[in-house]
Amino acid sequence: MFDPVEIPTSDLVDVLAAVCDIESVSGDEEALADAVEALLRGQPHLEVTRDGDAVVARTLLGRDRRVVLAGHLDTVPLTDPPNLPTRLEGTGDDRVLWGRGTVDMKAGIAVMLALAVELGRPGSEPVVDLTYVFYDHEEVEASKSGLGRLARNHPELLAGDFAVLGEPTAADIEGGCQGTIRVDVRTRGVAAHSARSWRGENAIHAAAPILARLAAYEAAEVGVDGLVYREGMNAVGIRGGIAGNVVPDACTVTVNYRFAPSRTLAEAEAHLRELFDGYEVTVTDSSPAARPGLDDPLAAEFAAAVLALTGGVPKPKFGWTDVARFAELGIPAVNFAPGDPSLAHADDERVPVRELAMCRDALRTWLRGQ
Amino acid sequence: MFDPVEIPTSDLVDVLAAVCDIESVSGDEEALADAVEALLRGQPHLEVTRDGDAVVARTLLGRDRRVVLAGHLDTVPLTDPPNLPTRLEGTGDDRVLWGRGTVDMKAGIAVMLALAVELGRPGSEPVVDLTYVFYDHEEVEASKSGLGRLARNHPELLAGDFAVLGEPTAADIEGGCQGTIRVDVRTRGVAAHSARSWRGENAIHAAAPILARLAAYEAAEVGVDGLVYREGMNAVGIRGGIAGNVVPDACTVTVNYRFAPSRTLAEAEAHLRELFDGYEVTVTDSSPAARPGLDDPLAAEFAAAVLALTGGVPKPKFGWTDVARFAELGIPAVNFAPGDPSLAHADDERVPVRELAMCRDALRTWLRGQ
Repeated sequence: MFDPVEIPTSDLVDVLAAVCDIESVSGDEEALADAVEALLRGQPHLEVTRDGDAVVARTLLGRDRRVVLAGHLDTVPLTDPPNLPTRLEGTGDDRVLWGRGTVDMKAGIAVMLALAVELGRPGSEPVVDLTYVFYDHEEVEASKSGLGRLARNHPELLAGDFAVLGEPTAADIEGGCQGTIRVDVRTRGVAAHSARSWRGENAIHAAAPILARLAAYEAAEVGVDGLVYREGMNAVGIRGGIAGNVVPDACTVTVNYRFAPSRTLAEAEAHLRELFDGYEVTVTDSSPAARPGLDDPLAAEFAAAVLALTGGVPKPKFGWTDVARFAELGIPAVNFAPGDPSLAHADDERVPVRELAMCRDALRTWLRGQ
Repeated sequence: MFDPVEIPTSDLVDVLAAVCDIESVSGDEEALADAVEALLRGQPHLEVTRDGDAVVARTLLGRDRRVVLAGHLDTVPLTDPPNLPTRLEGTGDDRVLWGRGTVDMKAGIAVMLALAVELGRPGSEPVVDLTYVFYDHEEVEASKSGLGRLARNHPELLAGDFAVLGEPTAADIEGGCQGTIRVDVRTRGVAAHSARSWRGENAIHAAAPILARLAAYEAAEVGVDGLVYREGMNAVGIRGGIAGNVVPDACTVTVNYRFAPSRTLAEAEAHLRELFDGYEVTVTDSSPAARPGLDDPLAAEFAAAVLALTGGVPKPKFGWTDVARFAELGIPAVNFAPGDPSLAHADDERVPVRELAMCRDALRTWLRGQ
């Protein structure tokens, strides 16, 4: 093992640039996990546990309540040419840091690391105990999730009364999250030489109604706990064909349905099976939605403290995030972090430096009870 | 280089089994070309030329007319588990040889090799001069064709008054061949995270009308020179999608149009562009059709001689074959060989031994003028 990269803690922008410049595409989080672990083990007020490429750090101050701050270390793949290392543009408060991961979600990671170093030092004690959870494999299939693995291996480490997940929200509070389910919708045919195509049945032609139903589908807007969620039903992949001179005997359309927290996973699956009635439908990946949870007292307290500082109103979270996993663990959770969520996964990911300090300050104020 | 495999010439079935058992999937024809070259160089009545993995052998008897017998050495890929080595089933005249290449088109190759060894020996002189052309890369894109390469490198070797191509016809005469053209029909969209799909435009959904047009397309039946050709319009491939959580920005449908000899290549392309009007259409591969050519005197003479022996009537050839290349070189050509053409490329390729002898005998009778 190499020595881990040292993450500077003097300035929030330096922290962010450092954690972004350690590439950590899903499956390749080790170097960043090493650096995070090394930083946290250097803080005497934290108890640190490593599990694979996940790192959990906790204060043990004996407080009545415990808040979990959580975020994933991995990013989607880099662009070509690569959108790393990061670059800082502009001056002063208008500075913007560009590069893969700046939005999703190393800005949240940077804020959490800064708070982990600060809160618990003499003179900077929080009014609650704190658990920081940094984990791997969020941007890939749910079965690989580092947070899921932690919940299986160390459920006690995830215990808490309220969780803040550092997914990008542009410093707004975003409650709940939509669910996501992926299915393969399959057609079958009979292969034949394309010069005698009447002997075969073309499975790609048979997929025409599947695409027509998707093209005609009107996604719902659904109100839940006062927030309005906008669903989505999309083909995210299609494949079929054996060779340039063969009538294909199979075609698969991969469909991703993003659904509002008003539906259970089972209801979402039933909706898909109804939409693609007559076709072979196989669920390949799914994660439930989470209701906003903003009626919870701790959530309300957090919202009041943060919104007093940032302005704005709570919004729905469209993307699926791990707040749904915390919801499954019985822990109310919200998303709150710097970065425009619509830039997540975009080639031109970038975060305004201003939002970094805003999020850190709001969390610090609330956690110190000031 | 290893010593080439020796091809036995005692029995036609042994010849066929030997040339089939030397695997020669397109791009991998060298071992078979070596074996064919070695066999032909052993015949003092033949002048042999090697070009890449093509082998041309000619008699130089000073006859008025020259007949070309031609066939490709390559096959489509083996199945899994492999459909080689060949196996012989049944007894006597009902024997059937199974395995990759038995139909397309090593049965034709075996007949040609047997005739190459026999015709020209003292006492077995043909009434015409003969050119045998064995070539590589037929089952792949037209640009790689070994016959095309020979036509560029050694056009003089392909000269002749009439050509018989050993593509499978079940010992019938099949005149002409349909043309083939492949196009990519492409849709464009705008990528977005599938959780915020309203920010994107789904290129796979946009392909729905392409598949609908294909599914509704009614292929024509076209009469040419008394033979009826049945066209085909098929998606042979479709691909689209970036990742499981991304609205795709591109989708490509690969369409193969097999068209009757009544259409030129330009007309076939225009027909495709009309069918997919409004979409980006790119031609990726094409080969013209060939008219039956059965009105040519030499073709008529051949047909009379063969049909007297085998019965039956000339038929259209649906698949594209290299008779179209001979047509381009100004040489009338027909397809004639053992093997059910509908088994070409099939996993269960097999040829009745009876047809082997029938084709050899018919050709021998005609070529010896007896």
